[in-house]
Amino acid sequence: MSSPSEIKNLCQKSLEAAKIGTGETEVQNGIDFYKFMFGNFPDLRVYFKGAEKFTPEDVQKSDRFKKQGQRILLACHILGNTFDDEMTFKAYARETVNRHRQFKMDPPLWKAFFAVFVAFLETKTKLDEKTKKAWDDLGEVFAKECYRHLKDCGLPTVEGETK
Amino acid sequence: MSSPSEIKNLCQKSLEAAKIGTGETEVQNGIDFYKFMFGNFPDLRVYFKGAEKFTPEDVQKSDRFKKQGQRILLACHILGNTFDDEMTFKAYARETVNRHRQFKMDPPLWKAFFAVFVAFLETKTKLDEKTKKAWDDLGEVFAKECYRHLKDCGLPTVEGETK
Repeated sequence: MSSPSEIKNLCQKSLEAAKIGTGETEVQNGIDFYKFMFGNFPDLRVYFKGAEKFTPEDVQKSDRFKKQGQRILLACHILGNTFDDEMTFKAYARETVNRHRQFKMDPPLWKAFFAVFVAFLETKTKLDEKTKKAWDDLGEVFAKECYRHLKDCGLPTVEGETK
Repeated sequence: MSSPSEIKNLCQKSLEAAKIGTGETEVQNGIDFYKFMFGNFPDLRVYFKGAEKFTPEDVQKSDRFKKQGQRILLACHILGNTFDDEMTFKAYARETVNRHRQFKMDPPLWKAFFAVFVAFLETKTKLDEKTKKAWDDLGEVFAKECYRHLKDCGLPTVEGETK
């Protein structure tokens, strides 16, 4: 695995293709994530109550996914940004699990998300293998902390993955 | 104002006195923040439904403030960490406002919080003037984005503060 600061830099650089903000392009980036996810991973729609049958076109018109799109990209920017500050990165992982408790997510999704996210980023920019590996490494550390925290909370987790 | 990376470094350094995590000391740091706030700024208790009359001793025994303590310190660590990444820092400010919408906070509190936080940090470590100024500068940028976002959302804001 590369060093935390190398991973941070590679992830941060790739996130330039998915900027967040209040401008039209930045808002669309967030919507585009969910259009991509709903179009390519329709099984994941089950976690979005009321939007279980949404098409990418429905996502485009939805005020909910306009907000949610910024929220998910912000989370990825925070993860990229804090990867060299293990204490903050892991606390953010635990807090993200806490906030998702109500959605009863299938535990492996905490890792699987990053494959979806990298595939989305590839719709926006060309990613080299090193950058894809950086996101995979980041996702591994994130998911491990999620699994550990789920276990600490007495919730279903991914056994054998926690160290 | 110092450069964003100088401000980041000063804030990050001071946060070493308020580490977060699952260990006893780190969990107590979060509880200590609310004990300090409830003891020294009792008027702010109104924003914590059900805990409006809590004493610092009540906070110490509360599972709610054990979690909430980590949450508030995490937010401060994220702010310190992202200050040199304006896009992420400002998006995090807007998201924090979104999450607090239900509490109908008095708008000036978005800035005033940082004086409370610095006073808390001073119970943990010695802060030089440069570090206090760094938190004040960070708080100013954070609050300005909060006020701008409140205005964009059609919510009460601090007039004359938004640029």
